[in-house]
Amino acid sequence: MAIEVYWGSGSPFAWRVLLALEFKRLPYSGHLLQFSKQEHKSPQLLSLNPRGRVPVLKDGDYVCFESLAILYYLERKYPQPPIFGRSAEEAGTIMRVICEYQAYIEPQLTRIVSAVFGGKSDLAADEITAAMHGVASEARTIEARLSKSDWIVGESYSAVDMVIFPGIQLLKRALEKPQAAALSSRFMPLEVNYPALGRWLARVAAQPGYERTYPPHWHSA
Amino acid sequence: MAIEVYWGSGSPFAWRVLLALEFKRLPYSGHLLQFSKQEHKSPQLLSLNPRGRVPVLKDGDYVCFESLAILYYLERKYPQPPIFGRSAEEAGTIMRVICEYQAYIEPQLTRIVSAVFGGKSDLAADEITAAMHGVASEARTIEARLSKSDWIVGESYSAVDMVIFPGIQLLKRALEKPQAAALSSRFMPLEVNYPALGRWLARVAAQPGYERTYPPHWHSA
Repeated sequence: MAIEVYWGSGSPFAWRVLLALEFKRLPYSGHLLQFSKQEHKSPQLLSLNPRGRVPVLKDGDYVCFESLAILYYLERKYPQPPIFGRSAEEAGTIMRVICEYQAYIEPQLTRIVSAVFGGKSDLAADEITAAMHGVASEARTIEARLSKSDWIVGESYSAVDMVIFPGIQLLKRALEKPQAAALSSRFMPLEVNYPALGRWLARVAAQPGYERTYPPHWHSA
Repeated sequence: MAIEVYWGSGSPFAWRVLLALEFKRLPYSGHLLQFSKQEHKSPQLLSLNPRGRVPVLKDGDYVCFESLAILYYLERKYPQPPIFGRSAEEAGTIMRVICEYQAYIEPQLTRIVSAVFGGKSDLAADEITAAMHGVASEARTIEARLSKSDWIVGESYSAVDMVIFPGIQLLKRALEKPQAAALSSRFMPLEVNYPALGRWLARVAAQPGYERTYPPHWHSA
């Protein structure tokens, strides 16, 4: 029985799982839910994840949610090729950088993205400026890693790349909006200010199957 | 060479790592840092973790930080006894409940604990009441799990117990303060309102080596 994955266009969390499924060459059938129709709050989805959030993965009778947990499940169930490293040390560092991203970057990145797309916030507010400053500073650390290696940790594409990539893509998309021009002036164009990060974005996008993971509604808007 | 762990008394993050080391029966030497003397911001600690946070684990030449990453490193390096489950499915669910705790409980729990110990917040403020309501509701879900099994996921003590236990202990300690009486009235006494959770706290505390993990300054205050 094929793996089923419930996802939503543009959800960075769901995107991680699609990247992992493609990298591991696992056959899966995707159920693209329309957030605008509240399909992630349907009785069917709530029966799989009571929190009504994507991604949700169903593998036979087993159901898992929370993107990092799905990545870890996939690693344990289908170990080759690995996405959590080839040694204990590499595994620890991959998880460490994932944890750092979630603790120190993601909350600020989410604040910026919500402010830009929500359209109701003052993008010059101190809180947003501080978030942008924080993200820019953390991005320097990732830039330094990527200037020494093709991938964020170790010598291979791994779960940490899959966790961070969709967030950076979403941030970039937000900061490309005309209303974000002043806010993003020292960050964008990303390829100029963070050249190694820019090359890494292209490297992930060149992976086999990438096109299937790309948020469909980003093509048209 | 023995494992070294840098920790601080009462840090729920550091406590997790000590619980894992004891459960895996790994010899380690602990460096108890004094937060009041800013020892976690010392040049030595900053050379290990530039963020100046505990826990930090050093195993020979390898350094790891972020508590979940340390737990995962220990599991990969010293697999027996396992703390991330015996099957891929159990592993996925352990990680899922850890992720849920970090996303939906920890931020609110931290808000309550900081408000109580910080001493500057109005504990009757809407924000704190809402956080207490959120934590109480999530605790019901954990209570339901623990009324069916001795451990939060599966049939064994695992990383999810180690992640959540120190947070619940810290919350309980905050809510026992006289100034938190009104705030905590529907939560405390925990053993009465959440009997399965209370028995689970005692079960973890009965594990071999537990006394070595207990925050030293909690004995005296």
